[in-house]
Amino acid sequence: MSKLEGIFTPLLVPLDQRGQINEAELRRFVNWLIERGVHGLYPNGSTGEFTRFTAEERRRIVRIVADETSGRVPILAGAAEANVDETLAACRAYAEMGVRAVAIVAPFYYKLTPESVYAYFAEIARHSPIDLTLYNIPMFASPIDVPTIRRLAEEFPRVIGIKDSSGDLAFMMRMIAQIRPIRPDFTFLTGWEAVLIPMLMIGCDGGTHASSNVVPEITRKMYDLYRAGGTAAAMQWQYRILELFDVMLYPFEFPDGFRAAAELRGFHFGRTRLPQTVSQRTEHLALNKVLQCILADFDLVQPPDNGCSVRPTDLGPEKLEQIVFKVMSEIKGRGLL
Amino acid sequence: MSKLEGIFTPLLVPLDQRGQINEAELRRFVNWLIERGVHGLYPNGSTGEFTRFTAEERRRIVRIVADETSGRVPILAGAAEANVDETLAACRAYAEMGVRAVAIVAPFYYKLTPESVYAYFAEIARHSPIDLTLYNIPMFASPIDVPTIRRLAEEFPRVIGIKDSSGDLAFMMRMIAQIRPIRPDFTFLTGWEAVLIPMLMIGCDGGTHASSNVVPEITRKMYDLYRAGGTAAAMQWQYRILELFDVMLYPFEFPDGFRAAAELRGFHFGRTRLPQTVSQRTEHLALNKVLQCILADFDLVQPPDNGCSVRPTDLGPEKLEQIVFKVMSEIKGRGLL
Amino acid sequence: MSKLEGIFTPLLVPLDQRGQINEAELRRFVNWLIERGVHGLYPNGSTGEFTRFTAEERRRIVRIVADETSGRVPILAGAAEANVDETLAACRAYAEMGVRAVAIVAPFYYKLTPESVYAYFAEIARHSPIDLTLYNIPMFASPIDVPTIRRLAEEFPRVIGIKDSSGDLAFMMRMIAQIRPIRPDFTFLTGWEAVLIPMLMIGCDGGTHASSNVVPEITRKMYDLYRAGGTAAAMQWQYRILELFDVMLYPFEFPDGFRAAAELRGFHFGRTRLPQTVSQRTEHLALNKVLQCILADFDLVQPPDNGCSVRPTDLGPEKLEQIVFKVMSEIKGRGLL
Amino acid sequence: MSKLEGIFTPLLVPLDQRGQINEAELRRFVNWLIERGVHGLYPNGSTGEFTRFTAEERRRIVRIVADETSGRVPILAGAAEANVDETLAACRAYAEMGVRAVAIVAPFYYKLTPESVYAYFAEIARHSPIDLTLYNIPMFASPIDVPTIRRLAEEFPRVIGIKDSSGDLAFMMRMIAQIRPIRPDFTFLTGWEAVLIPMLMIGCDGGTHASSNVVPEITRKMYDLYRAGGTAAAMQWQYRILELFDVMLYPFEFPDGFRAAAELRGFHFGRTRLPQTVSQRTEHLALNKVLQCILADFDLVQPPDNGCSVRPTDLGPEKLEQIVFKVMSEIKGRGLL
Repeated sequence: MSKLEGIFTPLLVPLDQRGQINEAELRRFVNWLIERGVHGLYPNGSTGEFTRFTAEERRRIVRIVADETSGRVPILAGAAEANVDETLAACRAYAEMGVRAVAIVAPFYYKLTPESVYAYFAEIARHSPIDLTLYNIPMFASPIDVPTIRRLAEEFPRVIGIKDSSGDLAFMMRMIAQIRPIRPDFTFLTGWEAVLIPMLMIGCDGGTHASSNVVPEITRKMYDLYRAGGTAAAMQWQYRILELFDVMLYPFEFPDGFRAAAELRGFHFGRTRLPQTVSQRTEHLALNKVLQCILADFDLVQPPDNGCSVRPTDLGPEKLEQIVFKVMSEIKGRGLL
Repeated sequence: MSKLEGIFTPLLVPLDQRGQINEAELRRFVNWLIERGVHGLYPNGSTGEFTRFTAEERRRIVRIVADETSGRVPILAGAAEANVDETLAACRAYAEMGVRAVAIVAPFYYKLTPESVYAYFAEIARHSPIDLTLYNIPMFASPIDVPTIRRLAEEFPRVIGIKDSSGDLAFMMRMIAQIRPIRPDFTFLTGWEAVLIPMLMIGCDGGTHASSNVVPEITRKMYDLYRAGGTAAAMQWQYRILELFDVMLYPFEFPDGFRAAAELRGFHFGRTRLPQTVSQRTEHLALNKVLQCILADFDLVQPPDNGCSVRPTDLGPEKLEQIVFKVMSEIKGRGLL
Repeated sequence: MSKLEGIFTPLLVPLDQRGQINEAELRRFVNWLIERGVHGLYPNGSTGEFTRFTAEERRRIVRIVADETSGRVPILAGAAEANVDETLAACRAYAEMGVRAVAIVAPFYYKLTPESVYAYFAEIARHSPIDLTLYNIPMFASPIDVPTIRRLAEEFPRVIGIKDSSGDLAFMMRMIAQIRPIRPDFTFLTGWEAVLIPMLMIGCDGGTHASSNVVPEITRKMYDLYRAGGTAAAMQWQYRILELFDVMLYPFEFPDGFRAAAELRGFHFGRTRLPQTVSQRTEHLALNKVLQCILADFDLVQPPDNGCSVRPTDLGPEKLEQIVFKVMSEIKGRGLL
Repeated sequence: MSKLEGIFTPLLVPLDQRGQINEAELRRFVNWLIERGVHGLYPNGSTGEFTRFTAEERRRIVRIVADETSGRVPILAGAAEANVDETLAACRAYAEMGVRAVAIVAPFYYKLTPESVYAYFAEIARHSPIDLTLYNIPMFASPIDVPTIRRLAEEFPRVIGIKDSSGDLAFMMRMIAQIRPIRPDFTFLTGWEAVLIPMLMIGCDGGTHASSNVVPEITRKMYDLYRAGGTAAAMQWQYRILELFDVMLYPFEFPDGFRAAAELRGFHFGRTRLPQTVSQRTEHLALNKVLQCILADFDLVQPPDNGCSVRPTDLGPEKLEQIVFKVMSEIKGRGLL
């Protein structure tokens, strides 16, 4: 089978007003993304809020996506479950649905040593009926280090790649330096679109970017520009994506900013599964306007009726308040205030 | 209903050789703990590896524990599920099983702001048919800060206490200073047995201690000694518990050291759900001997046949190797070595 | 020589309006502290802003303090300089001034391994003409771990104690458990007054507390109460000290809150060496009133003319704004906002 | 004056066998670097161990470097001293010596808020007789965030650039996006050679790289290749520099690995100011061989007599042991082992 390459969208999941999966909208969203050129789809990732769904819902999501995609693009399905046995059962189910490969995040909640991370993936790789990619996201889960990745790549042909969301270029280079010589087929995907073009330059094969739920035509264009030698033009888009990414990422709980921006593209994402306070809802309204202005600059949506005089970097009090909520957890966690 | 006080055991779950719940052994374990004086039982905590079981298994565990306990001691049942709706369903189920209260860990994987942590618990408290305690474990989950705890305590009578596993005395004092004046019924439990007696001295009501799976008679004795004014004697035990705790905690993946030590008390814990390498299994054999020696010093088990000349603090290479596995994740996570 | 015990004040340094050492006020301050019962004085600590003075100024400070003290209480002098040779020169100078011992912080800026921390202190201990205490403050300097402390305590009689500012009780217990059996003369001092009484309960010999610059009679009283068996009364003061400590510590740059509170006791601390913006100065005026109210509750100063209706825990916007400055560094450090 | 651009070497300081500045060797080293093409020299940086010298020694170092350079390349002199007054005195002294600009690291030891970091740099910028660059090294000193940099760039023409050693590309992009439009003359230098070429691609003006003490001809060649459009060739060198950098950086205390490698280029660096244990010295001997092999691969030195069969990535036990020393501080800091 061919190597995974290009932009894979870690699918947001449209919900209805009761917070249940909105199947019709999910199907419509899948088609829209494929039409705008994403190279693959990646349900049950962090952007897809996999931890907030039940095991049954996670399977239903992959089933819908696989059915609607009908082989037009490859699917990388997140298959992490409560333990190895459950994860293997999901691997078998997804294999039957025709997905190209599964992606498995390192164990989370408990922080594991590299030896245990190795043991975990080795046990899965030994019994999986389907190719698997490792998923390294050290801000949320146990880190997967270079020696462990190398060890798994050497021993298990079933392990065909890694998605890394650290955004650390030197780390990516260390992985590529160690593994590409022994496994030229191994895929390296970045999950940090803030540095997509630099990552391609150092040798990455592509990325799984939450932003591609919102601006799939642009993430695809960046990829194509770079591959065609248009580094300078690609970098101009990189700077613009960074601005959008920062506004979707930092003042919101993840992935609510991406859901809000994708709504502006014409989809109904419904009630988020994370309860919100009234004050949060008010703040989101202000932020939505900022998102609309950025997307309007991209010529992808209409600007708001009352214009776009305020720009994100000048947000001042509004953005301040948002960010304060986020950072106060630090100090408050220590019991102050 | 009376305030939660004393030592609650965050129950380890005996498994069989295929890694499935060993119901008979779990029932035997519950009886043994109650007979040795723990004040309450706490299934589905971090020690109970709640994330490694399916939603169905978590319910089955509480059902078995509640059935076997038959009201002899209060049960605090971990009820965190994938989202608020699922958590509320678990609350209802556990209420029907007759547990005293549920414990809900703050959302994990994603790191939430205090405002979202508040919104999450408020939504649960608003609809829960059963009392609930907050569970703060900042090393694994989103932190719950003092203002959020205070806000929840003020607004929701259903929120009756907090279990804090940070081990930070000043943090506990800040919570008590803020909340006890407005909610004298509110329970403060520590999850860090390394400092149980100091925590009782500053006003804690008790603790939920993984060590009480292993030495329930001693954690109970410490509590009783302190309450009876025997601070000096209690502190002597505190120093001995610290030594045991450190050996169970640091060289193992959590909670494998506690499982290993509880095995020495005569229970079969079966195959752990976390895969292990051969080298890890070898190291555990060496560590088991150390655990046996400490427990023999407590007059709770026989010493190993070949004696106890080596003591944990002199372990040198063996312990070194164990700890190295753990700390290397730090440096390896950055891709080095 | 006798063991170091009790409350050692890490001296604030009064400056004049040009930011130069105010010798007359420093002498008056030394007398005032000794009269209020502190057991010893500790110039050139973190509270004394040792890094903001030149090498010559650090010596002058110790000379003034030693001269004014005239042997009434023991002096522990911070002697860390740019490198081992300079530090040893300071040790010799302070020995000649008659100080009881020096305190040496672990190397900072660069983060050293335990092996290098050992090598550093070993080299100093080998050549120092005066007893030395280790100073562990992991939030600012390379950490000194228990094995390193033990190794130094075993090999060098010149190393007579440790001051630990982590506030971690379990860490202090691990040190005491390892070192007291082999060095009963070794002194354990805590630098975290938020938990002074619990630290005494687990076996600490005393503390070096920034708060004793402000309320020396109270830190002394807490110590005496505890030693006389009045644990409950001591704990009541502990809770009050915690409230004062938090307001002096968190909304200010360290040690400006302590300087502001000591001003209220009647001393002139002059222009701080850390430049301030106009907005910071305005905020400090509001915080000074809070400090005055807390100290008035202690019956140590008069309340402000317009009363004390607002209490620190209700501060709301004012305190919020202060703390925001502090925590924003986190998010801003990543380039956001 | 022209914008700072290109590779600036943060000069290592040769010492003699007593640990004193070796002036003759420093002069020889300066000439050797200039002859090999570095664009500028940067004495008193972190690589230059500025904190381990006295204030007098720091001035002497700049005086020697300026004298020997005689205007052939611009000098950026580290001027951070104990406080603002001392720093300004150093700025005046260095201005008289003819250096192009000074570099000032954010305050360290105490961790300051952005507001205080701003106040500190503003006070210096207001009175400095010479251009200054900010120096952001968040792993060692208080972080300087984007809004603070922007504020300083807007208000003070004297602030002409920033050196950032975080290695975070997205952070660098955020700085460039905010500041270049308002200050096209502002210089952005990276201190993380692991990603020099990607940093140039996103718009950096150059770098201050410790590695340029060791392989100045190669860091220069990388810069020239990139500027001439040879990105692919530059990236090949980038991967090789990464391998060298990792071996110089991680198994040693900083900057001992760079000193060891520069010794292999024919300079005497003498006794380091950081004491070492016998075991550390033994380990360094093994690592020196690895460094020699890498440099031999670059055709810059002869390989060791007994060949280079072992490569750094296969180092196994030797490197393991080194790294263990480093990472154990983590766990040991908590008092374990």
